[in-house]
Amino acid sequence: MDLLTALMTRRSIRKYQPQSVPGELVEKLLRAAMQAPSARNAQPWEFILLDDRNLLAQIPKICPNAPMAAHAPLGILVCGNLDLEKSEGFWVIDCSAAIQNMLLAAHGLGLGAVWCGIYPRQERVAGIRQLLHIPERVIPHSLVLVGYPAESPQPEDRYHPERVYKNRWGQKD
Amino acid sequence: MDLLTALMTRRSIRKYQPQSVPGELVEKLLRAAMQAPSARNAQPWEFILLDDRNLLAQIPKICPNAPMAAHAPLGILVCGNLDLEKSEGFWVIDCSAAIQNMLLAAHGLGLGAVWCGIYPRQERVAGIRQLLHIPERVIPHSLVLVGYPAESPQPEDRYHPERVYKNRWGQKD
Repeated sequence: MDLLTALMTRRSIRKYQPQSVPGELVEKLLRAAMQAPSARNAQPWEFILLDDRNLLAQIPKICPNAPMAAHAPLGILVCGNLDLEKSEGFWVIDCSAAIQNMLLAAHGLGLGAVWCGIYPRQERVAGIRQLLHIPERVIPHSLVLVGYPAESPQPEDRYHPERVYKNRWGQKD
Repeated sequence: MDLLTALMTRRSIRKYQPQSVPGELVEKLLRAAMQAPSARNAQPWEFILLDDRNLLAQIPKICPNAPMAAHAPLGILVCGNLDLEKSEGFWVIDCSAAIQNMLLAAHGLGLGAVWCGIYPRQERVAGIRQLLHIPERVIPHSLVLVGYPAESPQPEDRYHPERVYKNRWGQKD
């Protein structure tokens, strides 16, 4: 898929066909994520693949924004590892860039994905940490659910030129 | 450019040719940024284009990570607007996704770009706020510098399969 087409047509996909995501596509998603830029190139991310149905069924109790987890073939939990960070506080931003790469790659590979936020909601962070035995210096950032799409939402035009200023806040020329 | 090629080959570009970035390409960068996903689709971002050389020359004093600003044809400051946010605290993540879209679009359009972090460094936030007269509820997140590339760094393989676990922290199968 053409890059600009992918950027302009990607939508969140919350309904999936039942078949699992082939391993070679999962690797492509992970490779895309790990190519993201990060502060001082620290690459402070870790990933936990979730395909255990019992585990995925427990996610919505912890993350009320992720009811789709109960039916998604795959979850990819993205975490920030504070021991890998080089610029304090930038792990949140770095992991976000990795996730956006992953969402775009999913779209380009004919998959569908949705980004479910965990951090900075502390009750979600604690619940996911406990569920997956994640150590203290690793922080669950977001859960990406992935599968072959069972819905095809139309592209949405989100361009708001009124949100663009020039050389100073509020200035238009 | 093919999406997966773009994802795998994008690098930070810190040296630029002197010519300015055409307006139609700037619009494509902004459109790509604004297509990003955001928590509850709040799209809590605002943008300030910087092409005033006097302004750009002052950036490195505020952001020591952005010496390239003094020579970049264009800066795109990405800000989060707390009054547009629907899920408290997620504006940081939402703006990061928009920036990653913008960096990829720049690469696909034959431009080069680099992501210079501002937030959460409070002295950078305060300095940029003062320089560009940004109101209190709008927070400078990052500065993206853009121009036609005057360097062409090779793609870097950042894949670390040892950072991937399955169904539980530390578990490999």
